[in-house]
Amino acid sequence: MPVQTHAAFRDLAQHAIDSKTKPLGALGRIEALALQIALVQHSLTPRMQDCTLTIFAADHGIATEGVSAFPQEVTRQMVGNFLAGGAAANVFAAQLGVTVQVVDAGVAGPAMASEGLIDRRIGAGTASFLRAPAMSGAQVTQALDAGAAIATATPGDALAFGEMGIGNTATAAIVAHKMTDLPLDVLVGRGTGLDDAGMSRKHDILARAAARCPEPMDPMTVLAEYGGFEIVMMAGAMRATAEGGRLVLVDGFIATVAALAALQLAPDIRPALVFAHKSAEAGHRAVLDWLQADPLLTLDMRLGEGTGALLCWPLVQAAAAMLRDMASFDSAGVSAGV
Amino acid sequence: MPVQTHAAFRDLAQHAIDSKTKPLGALGRIEALALQIALVQHSLTPRMQDCTLTIFAADHGIATEGVSAFPQEVTRQMVGNFLAGGAAANVFAAQLGVTVQVVDAGVAGPAMASEGLIDRRIGAGTASFLRAPAMSGAQVTQALDAGAAIATATPGDALAFGEMGIGNTATAAIVAHKMTDLPLDVLVGRGTGLDDAGMSRKHDILARAAARCPEPMDPMTVLAEYGGFEIVMMAGAMRATAEGGRLVLVDGFIATVAALAALQLAPDIRPALVFAHKSAEAGHRAVLDWLQADPLLTLDMRLGEGTGALLCWPLVQAAAAMLRDMASFDSAGVSAGV
Repeated sequence: MPVQTHAAFRDLAQHAIDSKTKPLGALGRIEALALQIALVQHSLTPRMQDCTLTIFAADHGIATEGVSAFPQEVTRQMVGNFLAGGAAANVFAAQLGVTVQVVDAGVAGPAMASEGLIDRRIGAGTASFLRAPAMSGAQVTQALDAGAAIATATPGDALAFGEMGIGNTATAAIVAHKMTDLPLDVLVGRGTGLDDAGMSRKHDILARAAARCPEPMDPMTVLAEYGGFEIVMMAGAMRATAEGGRLVLVDGFIATVAALAALQLAPDIRPALVFAHKSAEAGHRAVLDWLQADPLLTLDMRLGEGTGALLCWPLVQAAAAMLRDMASFDSAGVSAGV
Repeated sequence: MPVQTHAAFRDLAQHAIDSKTKPLGALGRIEALALQIALVQHSLTPRMQDCTLTIFAADHGIATEGVSAFPQEVTRQMVGNFLAGGAAANVFAAQLGVTVQVVDAGVAGPAMASEGLIDRRIGAGTASFLRAPAMSGAQVTQALDAGAAIATATPGDALAFGEMGIGNTATAAIVAHKMTDLPLDVLVGRGTGLDDAGMSRKHDILARAAARCPEPMDPMTVLAEYGGFEIVMMAGAMRATAEGGRLVLVDGFIATVAALAALQLAPDIRPALVFAHKSAEAGHRAVLDWLQADPLLTLDMRLGEGTGALLCWPLVQAAAAMLRDMASFDSAGVSAGV
């Protein structure tokens, strides 16, 4: 293909979509997705055959302050469940032909010598950001770099990212609060299932933690003061995937906050991000609106692990196949509309 | 499995879903879908491996009155496109591993001697219901029976149904109007792409056609006076699929009106229907609301052909896989929440 301006290629791709045997625009968001894929791959015959899900697991010091309905040990137990293939993400991925890999980004306790686990531990969980910075600036850089290296080494026409970390809706809420002008009220949710009293406690703890650092804060400082190892590593992975010219499937609340962080560090990556699923977790909608992002799926899920990103993958494949394989009015001998 | 009451089996299935390694309810609509599948198959290890899409094509006399942006010949041309594998439904189905079959339920003009086409022609298109009954009562029965026979002979753990018929949003709108208390205003849409003048003309024609028959009308009479061969045949196919204990994937506006007709004839089939996609065609939302149905996908598509039903299939597979294959807290050794 000769060198073309971005605008000229966009016109070419839109024309190809409009020439397919269907009324103009009749495939709705699948058409918009096909255009996005064409632009990311700079191809009118895009390839969407392989997808890998990387699940980043880490623990959060804030979990020890009582912000979750589940005990912190569940992070480690779920890593075992992922490696054994028993979690929701494994089951969805197997059904969809997606490969899964699991990264220990910093689970509490000693390192796990589990076969198949990718060890990129930044620490044994973050510090409680109610009392101190969650991590050092050097750890932020280390986590971003580790995520970038993992993404670069991971095969796939699109990469999906998931997470596991008890307490990480609290971390995501405060990171989003500090990186946007959104109040904590709209960002704090029930996570894995807090009752009203638990919600109130979580909100109170986050408000006190937020008051610990004066604003404004640059994104790297927000990540050091309030971030989580899996969130920072995912942000690095998303950025590297997009900068490498590949599509990123953005999961739910936690992953969207990782995307928010990646976008603050590298705004140009936005065209490569596909927002997959609107979570039932309260804060997700607020962050999505702030990003002017409208996910393809709304299934009232709030699990994380990459489950929403996975369920979006067949839509991405269908969109690419539409552009690549569908007949045009000319090729099929079908009369166009008036 | 011993004989159980329906309620006891429902409790058993819900308990199995609640025991999976995830916070209670965290897979949202996928959990509800898994419960639905379990009940339809009466199994805690449901099978969702194979799906067949049957596309019913037919013409509508009303199309000759000027209610569509596309000429009537496009129905026949698109049948050729389906058989050649070039339409959106073919491309999505190939991507998703779904088998496609095409039925001539009554395309205008002579019968097509096309290899692979299933010939169940009820006539060479319906009569214009602006002036006369669309079909006879005997033809309604013939079409319902043909649809039932096709469905019964079609393999698949779930069956998806699509349609092609220039003018069939007009047919669907008036059938829905006569079968519910919904006014034409909320049921008439732009179909394949009418402009404002075209919309106004379509509405006027449908209002005049509706006035031709006094109310109330029973469902069989509505289908004879205003139906389409592909819609009636699809209603028969949906009913037989559901009564045979298999899941029905209900596509967009036209398919939902076929489901409405099937439900009026056999209300008990409701538990087997999965409403797949909320169409951008205006009338669809009204009929869905009337049916208290909330489709899984909203992708602003308005193409028909079964495209929405197809894109829902991986969600159905994921839901079944979740119930069948996902670990429980006990089996995975994961601590449950408080």
